[in-house]
Amino acid sequence: MDPEAFLDLANQVAKVKMYPYFDLAHAVVCCLIIKEDMGSGAIAFSRKHPLALWFSSMMSIFAGSIIANFLLGEPSLTPFKNNNQLLLATGVWYVIFYLPFDFGYKALKFLPVKMGCEALKEVYRAKQVHDGVGHAAKLFPNAYLVMVIIGAVKGNGDAFMRVLERLARGLWTPESVELIRPTFATKASVVASAVFVLHKKTDLISAPASCVHLIIIIFFVYFKVLGISDPLLPLENVLKKIFLGGIFDTLQETFYGKPEESEEAKKDES
Amino acid sequence: MDPEAFLDLANQVAKVKMYPYFDLAHAVVCCLIIKEDMGSGAIAFSRKHPLALWFSSMMSIFAGSIIANFLLGEPSLTPFKNNNQLLLATGVWYVIFYLPFDFGYKALKFLPVKMGCEALKEVYRAKQVHDGVGHAAKLFPNAYLVMVIIGAVKGNGDAFMRVLERLARGLWTPESVELIRPTFATKASVVASAVFVLHKKTDLISAPASCVHLIIIIFFVYFKVLGISDPLLPLENVLKKIFLGGIFDTLQETFYGKPEESEEAKKDES
Amino acid sequence: MDPEAFLDLANQVAKVKMYPYFDLAHAVVCCLIIKEDMGSGAIAFSRKHPLALWFSSMMSIFAGSIIANFLLGEPSLTPFKNNNQLLLATGVWYVIFYLPFDFGYKALKFLPVKMGCEALKEVYRAKQVHDGVGHAAKLFPNAYLVMVIIGAVKGNGDAFMRVLERLARGLWTPESVELIRPTFATKASVVASAVFVLHKKTDLISAPASCVHLIIIIFFVYFKVLGISDPLLPLENVLKKIFLGGIFDTLQETFYGKPEESEEAKKDES
Repeated sequence: MDPEAFLDLANQVAKVKMYPYFDLAHAVVCCLIIKEDMGSGAIAFSRKHPLALWFSSMMSIFAGSIIANFLLGEPSLTPFKNNNQLLLATGVWYVIFYLPFDFGYKALKFLPVKMGCEALKEVYRAKQVHDGVGHAAKLFPNAYLVMVIIGAVKGNGDAFMRVLERLARGLWTPESVELIRPTFATKASVVASAVFVLHKKTDLISAPASCVHLIIIIFFVYFKVLGISDPLLPLENVLKKIFLGGIFDTLQETFYGKPEESEEAKKDES
Repeated sequence: MDPEAFLDLANQVAKVKMYPYFDLAHAVVCCLIIKEDMGSGAIAFSRKHPLALWFSSMMSIFAGSIIANFLLGEPSLTPFKNNNQLLLATGVWYVIFYLPFDFGYKALKFLPVKMGCEALKEVYRAKQVHDGVGHAAKLFPNAYLVMVIIGAVKGNGDAFMRVLERLARGLWTPESVELIRPTFATKASVVASAVFVLHKKTDLISAPASCVHLIIIIFFVYFKVLGISDPLLPLENVLKKIFLGGIFDTLQETFYGKPEESEEAKKDES
Repeated sequence: MDPEAFLDLANQVAKVKMYPYFDLAHAVVCCLIIKEDMGSGAIAFSRKHPLALWFSSMMSIFAGSIIANFLLGEPSLTPFKNNNQLLLATGVWYVIFYLPFDFGYKALKFLPVKMGCEALKEVYRAKQVHDGVGHAAKLFPNAYLVMVIIGAVKGNGDAFMRVLERLARGLWTPESVELIRPTFATKASVVASAVFVLHKKTDLISAPASCVHLIIIIFFVYFKVLGISDPLLPLENVLKKIFLGGIFDTLQETFYGKPEESEEAKKDES
């Protein structure tokens, strides 16, 4: 592809407004995840506890901003001040949970529609990561870790909110904390945040900001659409083997035999 | 009643200071709820873990301000800076849990005393809702939902704090999240917040502010003293039937038969 | 000891930088506690969930600042903006969990090394309490309780963070809330905070600030090195007997017989 044309495209992509289409796709994906998370009890729960379900959905949809604001000491309710986004999210919630004959859910779960929404959501994610890193960089100009954390949290907020969002529905699942088994979306957000930080704070990446942004979008959408579960896994395993004990543990086992494992560890493995 | 006299009364009520009598009544009601929540283990627990119990009580008494400050990005400890209120609350805590022969608890549980405290607490609640809506409106002038949330949280803070307040006593009850089964106090606070927001932001309610405030107080005290469990329930059920699937679910059952319910939903129903 | 020499020493101690040696000792003690908290599953967990373990360690090491910032409405991520401290903490985490043959852990658990670290950590704790009280006093000049809370939280943050830190590792232990069974470190931090508050806000303690600081350090280190589990316990028991029902409960039992205890209270006792 011609670099000139790519730069033009990148500049146009950087100017695209998130509201309403990308916000809509994001809300749809979040609500579908919640509906699937509830399994067969979804309809019964939605009829009995609409308020809890609505809060749960809003917490999930605005999770990135809520957690980032909380971590940066700003009002957690800030995302709720945008009445248009709120109405949009409420509409999506209503369509997915309450349309007669479960029509909304069935229509949006239809594969091409769902794929489209997920692709748009990845564009939204890239934008959120970008904005998160920028916002953190303004508040803490030299705090690289803070930028990465805020970028990751804004990029994949609903996964980090999962435990609290379920709590709002009366479920408590401490073992599903995102940090324990980070999904690819989290890892990708961390990588993207790190790329944005490198671009902002060092001279290592000389491309213009809009190009970096577009490349991140392509990277997100590409792996989502291809459905590769985790392309970072091999790299991660190599690093784990080298730095986090892998090789030396094997060495130690050769010399001293396998250490007896606790019951808990065994259970965790199976 | 003569409108002039009503307006006069309303203006006088709006000027009433909350400290000390209304604060006192509020603290008494909160501590009584905690004591009853602990059941027969209350005395044993109070003797063994006074610090946890004290924090639990303070969290409950100042719950509205703590949660509202947290949500608005202000210091959560702000309510603890008022030493007089703190001493008052500590005094109530001591009287209810530690007076010899459980005298304080028995005296305050005596029906006329308890009813008086609950009536005063409703006046306090109306004031809290009013102040909460006003405070949120200053920070986010167009965020109607934020105003309603802050009003509801300030009006019925101890119910929203329940899960955390129990956690401070080592109990974890995720299923008792207020949002799942909102009490009438929560619903009434939401309605009152909405009325205050409508009065502040639209021209729909033309009465002066103090009159609206007095009407809310009367509404709160009236239903508390009458002991009607939930006068909003019929309205709620109608709305649920129309908007949240009721009628169409019945229609669907007629056509397709009752869907098989999950085990969880059945358990939830029984 | 000569008062002049003591004052000189105190002034010099007050000027000592915490970074890097005291920060190092603090990080070592925190990580050792986490490793011991995980028991025999530590190595298996560290190999499988390094990210969760790293966050858990950072939450524990920077717990004081994180919680204090949270309570004061400041960005919780502030401690992460100091890249040097962060690298130091990460280094300690790596050494303790991932050195081949568990070498780091074994070396640091070696008694004289561990004792040295714990002694340094007590100096660090005294400094944290001092800074916490000073910081809170700037924000809320008359809020004595807020100063004591912030001092205590900064002094013994990792104990208050324990429940959340375990949650980051997927464990949920609501019964181990610090407030229910406060350790000596918490009580000592509360006492030290109260002494700093008295010195700052009243004329009761006429010694110069640096002397008070040194005396607190000596008090902390002395009881830690001696290994007395809780020198405040006798005083506490006397106060409990007088004010929190002890004597009158006995009196009541004499008159009316022992009240029947609930099952829960019995379980709690055994």
